[in-house]
Amino acid sequence: MLTNDQKSMDKIVNLCKSRGFVYPGSEIYGGLANSWDYGPLGVELKNNIKRAWWQKFVQESPYNVGLDASIIMNPETWVASGHLGGFSDPLMDCKSCKTRHRADNLIEDFDGTNPAGWTNQQMMDYIREKQIPCPNCGKTDFTDIRQFNLMFKTYQGVTENSKSELYLRPETAQGIFVNFANIQRTTRKKLPFGVAQIGKSFRNEITPGNFIFRVREFEQMELEFFCKPDTDLEWFQYWRSYCKNFLLTLGLKEENLRLRDHDPEELCFYSKATTDFEYKFSFGWGELWGVADRTNYDLTQHQEHSGKSLEYMDQEENTKYIPYVIEPSLGVERLFLSIVTEAYDEEVVDAEKNDTRVVMHLHPALAPYKAAVLPLSKKLGDKAREVYAVLAKHFSVDYDETGSIGKRYRRQDEIGTPFCITVDFDTIEKDNCVTVRDRDTMEQVRMPIDELVSYLQDKVTL
Amino acid sequence: MLTNDQKSMDKIVNLCKSRGFVYPGSEIYGGLANSWDYGPLGVELKNNIKRAWWQKFVQESPYNVGLDASIIMNPETWVASGHLGGFSDPLMDCKSCKTRHRADNLIEDFDGTNPAGWTNQQMMDYIREKQIPCPNCGKTDFTDIRQFNLMFKTYQGVTENSKSELYLRPETAQGIFVNFANIQRTTRKKLPFGVAQIGKSFRNEITPGNFIFRVREFEQMELEFFCKPDTDLEWFQYWRSYCKNFLLTLGLKEENLRLRDHDPEELCFYSKATTDFEYKFSFGWGELWGVADRTNYDLTQHQEHSGKSLEYMDQEENTKYIPYVIEPSLGVERLFLSIVTEAYDEEVVDAEKNDTRVVMHLHPALAPYKAAVLPLSKKLGDKAREVYAVLAKHFSVDYDETGSIGKRYRRQDEIGTPFCITVDFDTIEKDNCVTVRDRDTMEQVRMPIDELVSYLQDKVTL
Repeated sequence: MLTNDQKSMDKIVNLCKSRGFVYPGSEIYGGLANSWDYGPLGVELKNNIKRAWWQKFVQESPYNVGLDASIIMNPETWVASGHLGGFSDPLMDCKSCKTRHRADNLIEDFDGTNPAGWTNQQMMDYIREKQIPCPNCGKTDFTDIRQFNLMFKTYQGVTENSKSELYLRPETAQGIFVNFANIQRTTRKKLPFGVAQIGKSFRNEITPGNFIFRVREFEQMELEFFCKPDTDLEWFQYWRSYCKNFLLTLGLKEENLRLRDHDPEELCFYSKATTDFEYKFSFGWGELWGVADRTNYDLTQHQEHSGKSLEYMDQEENTKYIPYVIEPSLGVERLFLSIVTEAYDEEVVDAEKNDTRVVMHLHPALAPYKAAVLPLSKKLGDKAREVYAVLAKHFSVDYDETGSIGKRYRRQDEIGTPFCITVDFDTIEKDNCVTVRDRDTMEQVRMPIDELVSYLQDKVTL
Repeated sequence: MLTNDQKSMDKIVNLCKSRGFVYPGSEIYGGLANSWDYGPLGVELKNNIKRAWWQKFVQESPYNVGLDASIIMNPETWVASGHLGGFSDPLMDCKSCKTRHRADNLIEDFDGTNPAGWTNQQMMDYIREKQIPCPNCGKTDFTDIRQFNLMFKTYQGVTENSKSELYLRPETAQGIFVNFANIQRTTRKKLPFGVAQIGKSFRNEITPGNFIFRVREFEQMELEFFCKPDTDLEWFQYWRSYCKNFLLTLGLKEENLRLRDHDPEELCFYSKATTDFEYKFSFGWGELWGVADRTNYDLTQHQEHSGKSLEYMDQEENTKYIPYVIEPSLGVERLFLSIVTEAYDEEVVDAEKNDTRVVMHLHPALAPYKAAVLPLSKKLGDKAREVYAVLAKHFSVDYDETGSIGKRYRRQDEIGTPFCITVDFDTIEKDNCVTVRDRDTMEQVRMPIDELVSYLQDKVTL
C-alpha cells in the first residue's frame, strides 16, 4: 500500500485527466489559468461527495435545514461582512522582473514563518531585513505592498456605473446570515439549529495552483450553526468531532489528517476558537476544513447595517439575543482531491509476472460507478444490457464489452468501481446468475440476478 | 380541483415565501432586482428536481454521461459561440420618461405580433407606424434601438484591463462543446452519445419578472446529444418524446402542456427543427423547455476558432465527420414553478363546516419531505424521535410535535409531504406500529415500524 508521500501529484493528475475525472477548463482554447472542468466520472464523484455531506449535515441531522441562496447578492452584504473593505491580498511587484507576489507567501515560502496577523509594514520590514529574494529572478527589490480585493466585480443592468456594481460571492456563508430571520420564522425552528448550504464561490486569487487545491471558482459546503450565547464552545466541540467522524467515514485515514487548533494570538478578533483540519496531500499538508466559533459577530454586523432585527426570541427564558454561530466550512474540490489521493494505490498482483494494478479504493458510496456490467462475450450483450437496465434504475452503472475480462477489471479498478458483474454463458443457459467481483479483495461470488440490487444497496450505503 | 387559471401567482408566491420555499434574495437589504433564494423546502424540491433529471437523462440512459464545467470560461468560447457578437437585447429609451424597454417586447405586448427574426429597422418602423406607446408614460417617442449584450462581464487577475475580461456563462451548453473531444476520448463512447450538465448561467436581462420565471441568475439542465449526420431528425423526435414523458412522469398534466414546433421561417439559420415546450403558468403560457436540432453548427464553430479538430472518427464506416447535435435545454427554476403550480390545490374537506385545505400534490419523489413524524403527545417524543432517526437515514423527514394533529396534517399537506406518520400510545404500549396517513386520499393505515422504510421506498421512487 502506498503512503501519501508516494502518491505523486503527477500520477493523480494524469489519472484524473486520462479517465475523465478532471479536464483543464476550456482546453481547446489553451485553457484558462487554473480552471478545471469535471468530466463524466468527476461529476459523479463530486455529486456523491455533495450528497454524502448533505445526508450527514442536513438529512440525518435533527438540527439542520438547507438553503440555496444566490451567488449575486445585494452589495450591502459585502459592506456588512467586511469583504468590500478588507477581503484583499497584500501584493508586491518585483521591480526587476515585474512579476507579482503575495507578501505573506514570500515570507512563508522563504523560512516557514507564518505572518498571519502582521501588518503590511511588518511584512515589508521582514522581507527587507531578511533580504527575501524574488522567486522568479532572485533579486530583492520589491514595491511597497498594495491591497487587492479578491472579489470578482461585475455590473447588473445595461450600463457600467458604480450604482449597479455587484460582486460574485467570495463565500456562501453570508447567504445564510442574511436569510437567518426568514429561515427561523418560516421553519419555526428553536435554537440550537443550523443552516447548511452548498454552492459556488469565487475568489480572484493571484496564485491559484496545486491542481484543484486552490482555484478561483470553487464550491463550498458550509454550515452555520446557531446556538445560545455561552453554549458556543460546547457546540464547537460537537461539530469539530462530527466533521472529523465524517471524514473518517468517507475513508480518509487518521494518519493523513491533523487538527490544528489556533493559538489565541492567531484567532480572528471575533472568534473564540478555530480549528483547521489539514490533510496530507501529495504536495504536503494543506487546509481542508475550517471549523470556527464566530460568536455573534456576523449577525451583529448584518443587524447594524440592515437596520433589521436579527435577534432571536427565546421563549423559554423570555429574552432576546443575537445567536452565536459555529461555522464548519469545507471546499468540495479539496475534499475531492483528498479522497482521490487517499483512494489511489498501486498494488502488486503477481510479483513473479511483475504485474501491478492501479486501484482507487473509494468508499462505494462515493464511487462514480457502483458497478460495471461486463458480458464475457458480445453474444451475451442482450442479457448483459438487461442486467444493466435493472441496476441503472437504482445506481450509476458502467457497461463495457471491449477487451479481455482482465483488462476490463483493471479499467474499473482504476476508476474505483467497487463491483464488476460478469455475465457468462451459464447465466443464460443455466442459472440466471452472475459473478460479482469485489474491487478490493478481488474475490468473486456467484449470485442470482434478482439479488443484485439489494446486495449492492447494502454495500453502497454511507 | 383547481385549474391552473384559478391558481393565482399571488397564492403561489405567498405559499412559497411563507413556508420556506423561496425568499426574495438579500431581503434584509431591500432585495436585489428579482433575485430569489431557495429556503429549506425550496432547496430540497430543487435538489429533487435536479436528481430526477439526472436519473432519467444520465443514470438510466445507456447513451449519456455527465459533465460539470466551469462557469467562467476562456472568452474565446464566446467569440466562437457568437455570444460576444450577437447575444444582445434590442433596447430603446423613452425620450419622454427615460425608461428603457425591449423593442420586441413592446411589439409583442402591444398587439401580440411576434417579431422573431426581424431586423432592428423593421422593429423601429413597426413601432412608429403603429404608434406603440411607452408602457410607462404613454407617449410614443423612443430613441433608436441599441443592442446591449446580455453577458455579465468581470475581470480576472488584479487589474481591470481588456486582456483579462471574462464573462459569466450565459448557457451551460458551450462547456459541453469545448469538452466534446476530451469526453469522447476518455469515455471511448461511440456515436450516438450525449453529455448532460446541470449548472448556473447568468443573463443580464433588462426585464426579469414573473417570480422565478425570468431571472438573471438561473440554473440550467442541458443535454447535448451527438449523432451521425442524417440521423439527427430521428433523434430529435426521440428526445422530444423523452422530454415530454419526463414531464408527465413528474406529474405535469397534458392539458397544461403544449409543444410548439417552430415554422421554417422561425428557425435559427443553423437549426433543422426546434420545439418549444410551453406550460400554462398562472400568468399564461410560458416557455419551459426548448428542444433543438442544432446540426453541426456549434462544433464547427469551435473547430474553426480553436484550430483543434472536433471531428469524430467513425470506425465502422472508416470516415470522419463533425457530429450533429440535438439539444434539450431546460431551466430548473421554470420547472420548479410549473411543478409547484401543477401541485397546488385547494380542496373542500367538509362542505358543511366550510372546511378547505391547501394541499400540494407533489410527486413523492419530488416532495421536500417524504414523511413527517408526529407524536400524538409530547410524552411520546422519545419513541417518535427513534422513528425519525430510522427514516432519516434514508429520506428527508420532518418532525413536528406542536399543535393539534389536524393542524399538523394541514401544515404537511400545504408543503406536499406525502406521508404523515403518527406515533400514539398504542405504539409504545401495544403494537410497535404507527399510523400512516396518505396526503392525497387522507386514508390511514396502521403498520409496523419495521416496514416503514420499504413502504416509503416503494412510493418515493420515480
